[in-house]
Amino acid sequence: MEAIVKSSGSTNLLQGCVLSNVFYEPSTRTSSSFYAAMLRLGGLVVPINAETSSVKKGETLEDTVRSLESYSDVIVLRHPEIGAAQRASDVLRIPLLNAGDGAGEHPTQALLDAFCIMKEFNVTTFDGLTVTLLGDLKHGRTVHSLAQLLSHYKVKLNYVSPDFLRMPEKVFTEVKGRGVPQHVCNDVRSVLAETDVLYVTRVQKERFTDMKQYEEAASLYIVNHALLAAGKAKSTLRILHPLPRVNELAFELDSDPRAAYFRQMEAGLYVRMALLALVLGRVPPPSPKFPAKL
Amino acid sequence: MEAIVKSSGSTNLLQGCVLSNVFYEPSTRTSSSFYAAMLRLGGLVVPINAETSSVKKGETLEDTVRSLESYSDVIVLRHPEIGAAQRASDVLRIPLLNAGDGAGEHPTQALLDAFCIMKEFNVTTFDGLTVTLLGDLKHGRTVHSLAQLLSHYKVKLNYVSPDFLRMPEKVFTEVKGRGVPQHVCNDVRSVLAETDVLYVTRVQKERFTDMKQYEEAASLYIVNHALLAAGKAKSTLRILHPLPRVNELAFELDSDPRAAYFRQMEAGLYVRMALLALVLGRVPPPSPKFPAKL
Amino acid sequence: MEAIVKSSGSTNLLQGCVLSNVFYEPSTRTSSSFYAAMLRLGGLVVPINAETSSVKKGETLEDTVRSLESYSDVIVLRHPEIGAAQRASDVLRIPLLNAGDGAGEHPTQALLDAFCIMKEFNVTTFDGLTVTLLGDLKHGRTVHSLAQLLSHYKVKLNYVSPDFLRMPEKVFTEVKGRGVPQHVCNDVRSVLAETDVLYVTRVQKERFTDMKQYEEAASLYIVNHALLAAGKAKSTLRILHPLPRVNELAFELDSDPRAAYFRQMEAGLYVRMALLALVLGRVPPPSPKFPAKL
Repeated sequence: MEAIVKSSGSTNLLQGCVLSNVFYEPSTRTSSSFYAAMLRLGGLVVPINAETSSVKKGETLEDTVRSLESYSDVIVLRHPEIGAAQRASDVLRIPLLNAGDGAGEHPTQALLDAFCIMKEFNVTTFDGLTVTLLGDLKHGRTVHSLAQLLSHYKVKLNYVSPDFLRMPEKVFTEVKGRGVPQHVCNDVRSVLAETDVLYVTRVQKERFTDMKQYEEAASLYIVNHALLAAGKAKSTLRILHPLPRVNELAFELDSDPRAAYFRQMEAGLYVRMALLALVLGRVPPPSPKFPAKL
Repeated sequence: MEAIVKSSGSTNLLQGCVLSNVFYEPSTRTSSSFYAAMLRLGGLVVPINAETSSVKKGETLEDTVRSLESYSDVIVLRHPEIGAAQRASDVLRIPLLNAGDGAGEHPTQALLDAFCIMKEFNVTTFDGLTVTLLGDLKHGRTVHSLAQLLSHYKVKLNYVSPDFLRMPEKVFTEVKGRGVPQHVCNDVRSVLAETDVLYVTRVQKERFTDMKQYEEAASLYIVNHALLAAGKAKSTLRILHPLPRVNELAFELDSDPRAAYFRQMEAGLYVRMALLALVLGRVPPPSPKFPAKL
Repeated sequence: MEAIVKSSGSTNLLQGCVLSNVFYEPSTRTSSSFYAAMLRLGGLVVPINAETSSVKKGETLEDTVRSLESYSDVIVLRHPEIGAAQRASDVLRIPLLNAGDGAGEHPTQALLDAFCIMKEFNVTTFDGLTVTLLGDLKHGRTVHSLAQLLSHYKVKLNYVSPDFLRMPEKVFTEVKGRGVPQHVCNDVRSVLAETDVLYVTRVQKERFTDMKQYEEAASLYIVNHALLAAGKAKSTLRILHPLPRVNELAFELDSDPRAAYFRQMEAGLYVRMALLALVLGRVPPPSPKFPAKL
């Protein structure tokens, strides 16, 4: 997909296919990335969002997607409720891709994160990597999906968060069941030296009731040059972030070669192109070395 | 159009043509159906809606559409005011399709309803059919348009509604003028046995001032398996609904072969493709056996 | 570009190129004109607006456009802040077109205004023309951009506005520096007889604190047949307006051949097509007779 985009910009692989790009929540990155992915594959896009559509008129999600199915070949759905993608998919004959279901999953984000890591380290496996997940691990659907994906490989995972924003027990247990070592701590400096991938997410102010507690926490979760130096970060470290950032990643890092977050965004385009082509049966399924669950 | 979609998904019939898809009111079904129709015909779509455009800045509708005309080949317009489509059309040199003008008309819905009936009964005329229109017949622009369309054929029409939500006198008189028998009643069970097409619309709670009256009425206008059995509905009955539904059609009906409402939605795609190609002069006009007024 | 649109409707000049059409403020004309321009050139469009995107989540403009860059070939940006387009452009490797930055500039509007004048008078220069700018010259970004553009030619400029809505000193000084005569007055009738191009903009009621003052002013800034006759307007006069109008241009003028404002809108399509093709390197740059600053 990257080769197609870089050589000719687009292809006609999905000619005649219509994507309904359905976003019940505002989104820039995921929505427009899927949109561009479909267009660059030669497909057609009908955008649907809550503001301009009648999805708020009291119709069930199931009825809405069955209606869209009547003129679509594939649906991409972002919805605020956990499990919405599964519910919608259950009534459809056409494929549906989950673009985020509340605090549930964000599987295409995890796949693009993984693809970005592969590209940054020029590898085809994650074996041997130490990945540190930083920030609000409780509510962040992207870190839930990524930890689960990486647990199929021989990785080490560090979880760095305030105590009350820890990785959910459910994810912890699933990862443990695959024999992947997981280390939990509050201070990223203690694990930075061994870290290959630092995956940063925001600690949202509104999660805190005690502002003093927030300020203490925030100072620990702002990544900048001083922190990287203090923690003796590797020169081969790669910093990822699902974006948007507010202040948890200093702008001074943008020109650092270790900052991979804008390249990560680009990886999303190729991954979503591949997924669309895959579910529409226009490319062969991935090789068996990838876990079937992916 | 159906053959095009089912064989290759799209065609290049409308290559180089731009549709301005203008929706002053939220819409999922009509908006996205026209959108997909234009794309599947190889045309281009510029979407315009009240939320993201400056249509609320005080400009007249006439000025807006004349502006859009400067880069468009055809306009689809939904507008909250009766007569808006006619007003807009009067100042344009390019064709405009009415996608609903307030409580006025919704002609493309009537055409897709008619096309769906033809397909369900595998006929090319409506002669001999008994069609029962159920629900809020006063405010429903779809039933107004459908009754007028069907009145050009040898049909029987039943109107089932609460007294204060009856079919407007204007429609009743026009249909009567064509010699079509019309029967008015409050209880659908009295006419279900003879009905070939049951066209269900919602009785909206907000129309009632007396909630007791609403509850009595609502119980009469909810279609489910029990009602079909009590009314001795034919096995060849077809149930249509313009969607969205709230609770007036039980979900248990969805798997009943008599439930045609999702197939009806699909018919909309083909009808709107045909209409776009027709008004842009890319397909020959319909044969003379169709009434000229259509 | 006009020949392409009038002969075949579209071309494949920008095949495989993606435009992110980013509007932080509502817009009908500029947004949809760029949208149609890109589509008619065979390009692909991903629309982004503040209502349906997450641009309000606290992300900087710079981060947003760098994210969009990862799947786009060109960005069109409308933003409420002066200088926003420059700021965004500074962090991008791909081209960005300014579609209006607050009360700052609206350069593509000035280019389309200029192109419209060329077409109306069938000339390739503006030398010798007397152009009268009428209305709110203080806040109107279109008149700022147009005066600057025309000042590269041997024109005469008349500025007609209430005293407190005069052309900003900055623009006045820049134009004066190029030796272009500028005449300031309050009554359009005093300069109408010599005027070749009357460029009308609205005097917005909300700018006035004294309603009596507004009513006096408004009566001077409403252009209609009576005013044109009273001012002895030329038969070759051309009236332009960036639209939307409210009441400052009487509808009775629409059928007058001197009313060029709807043709002006059409010119915008061709100019924006040319600009997109130009910045994407698909057409040669304009000939040296055009000032390099354009």
